[in-house]
Amino acid sequence: MIKNIVIIGAGNLATQLALVLTEKGIPVKQIFSRNLDSARELAEKTGAAFTNNLSQLLPEVDLYLIAVKDSAIQEVLENLSLDENRMIVHTAGSVPMNILDGFSGNYGVFYPLQTFSKNRKIDFSDIPICIEANHPARLMELQELGEKLSGSVHQINSDDRKILHLAALFANNFVNHFYSIGERLLQDKKLNFDLLKPLIRETAEKIESLPPSDAQTGPAKRNDQTIINTHLKMLHDQPELQKIYRLMSESIFQFHQNQKHDLL
Amino acid sequence: MIKNIVIIGAGNLATQLALVLTEKGIPVKQIFSRNLDSARELAEKTGAAFTNNLSQLLPEVDLYLIAVKDSAIQEVLENLSLDENRMIVHTAGSVPMNILDGFSGNYGVFYPLQTFSKNRKIDFSDIPICIEANHPARLMELQELGEKLSGSVHQINSDDRKILHLAALFANNFVNHFYSIGERLLQDKKLNFDLLKPLIRETAEKIESLPPSDAQTGPAKRNDQTIINTHLKMLHDQPELQKIYRLMSESIFQFHQNQKHDLL
Repeated sequence: MIKNIVIIGAGNLATQLALVLTEKGIPVKQIFSRNLDSARELAEKTGAAFTNNLSQLLPEVDLYLIAVKDSAIQEVLENLSLDENRMIVHTAGSVPMNILDGFSGNYGVFYPLQTFSKNRKIDFSDIPICIEANHPARLMELQELGEKLSGSVHQINSDDRKILHLAALFANNFVNHFYSIGERLLQDKKLNFDLLKPLIRETAEKIESLPPSDAQTGPAKRNDQTIINTHLKMLHDQPELQKIYRLMSESIFQFHQNQKHDLL
Repeated sequence: MIKNIVIIGAGNLATQLALVLTEKGIPVKQIFSRNLDSARELAEKTGAAFTNNLSQLLPEVDLYLIAVKDSAIQEVLENLSLDENRMIVHTAGSVPMNILDGFSGNYGVFYPLQTFSKNRKIDFSDIPICIEANHPARLMELQELGEKLSGSVHQINSDDRKILHLAALFANNFVNHFYSIGERLLQDKKLNFDLLKPLIRETAEKIESLPPSDAQTGPAKRNDQTIINTHLKMLHDQPELQKIYRLMSESIFQFHQNQKHDLL
């Protein structure tokens, strides 16, 4: 059983994981960050030790959890020296587990499928936690750890996790960018972004009970070229938004055409 | 004061409006739809009369509310003959009020900014209702009517309503299409779309307290070309999704670069 943890990283995910682990009674012994202030700040919130030096990680801890941005994982690994029976996991959606196979010991992946911010407390109870490990016994340990945080723990291999991460990027990063575009369009006319919030809420809530392909409405789906052209004209001084608008409209139309064909 | 209403249309919006008006004690006297079955179905839910013939609209009603798709409004108007002191409104985001100025009498716009489905009951209480009228006294009547349904009634002119509609399209139509893309990516690998739902919820909830531009995360914002290229490769057999991915990533990066410059 995993009884204590070192967290490598002090960013959005590291912060939320450190907080929830502490809350659930699983001690976070130490926080590492290249930035000592960030390490200290998070350590203070969780009663952990802290360091900005990977060679000073506490040696006898059950789990070393890497929660740095994907592109920094390799560098962390190159500077890490752990007893070979220690377990190490990363938390990245798009990075295969085998990046860790230089460790002869125990390793795996612990990937919470959610968007995290440092200052926004997250309820972990329904967050899908995707786990993978190099050994069935280690997988069980990660399962147990996951279940302490969430009712939704899933064994997902590296290939499937990559797909999940890509789909999540559409459903979060790209979706949020459309919120930003909406915000900017309104700001330009001194209209309040709050006007869009009930719509944004309902759009997200609708797909709890309706597949998104059934929830689709709007001019693109019915190929209403009059409205589409009006909108393209309105965006004439923002060619990049025009391109996005055109491409999305074509994609929506094609998607629903194909669906119709699928039904024949 | 508007004491009774005829609804022209029996689609998603017409249905939800007929239901909420009835519920709030404002009688819907009659439903018109070109499709008699649709008219009957909605009429039965609301205790209204119904017809598929515009020349048979009840003559002495306070408000005639057009809730058909934008492209069908003109045709409705051409076949409508009302006493000149009757009031008529349309409910379309992208259609200017002056489409109604053939009516010498009283006219306006009553545009609820939300996504509607026939079978999903909508809570109107916080839906922004955007009103406009050809006369201050009529505007007051629409304000009063709106306030019976919602705590969020706004006087918005035709130009601003057009912008709201365009922004709403990004925040709803295009957002929902990304949910669909996420769903399809997962389905192709037999992964359950439910895995994305907590993320979708949180993405929408986050912007209640954080401007979307501050909520943005992900590889595009930090210009992480390694992940971006991995994803583009994963989409090699879906060139249309590749295009969307590339365009969105560029747009996110540019948007946040410009924001940085704005701060200098």
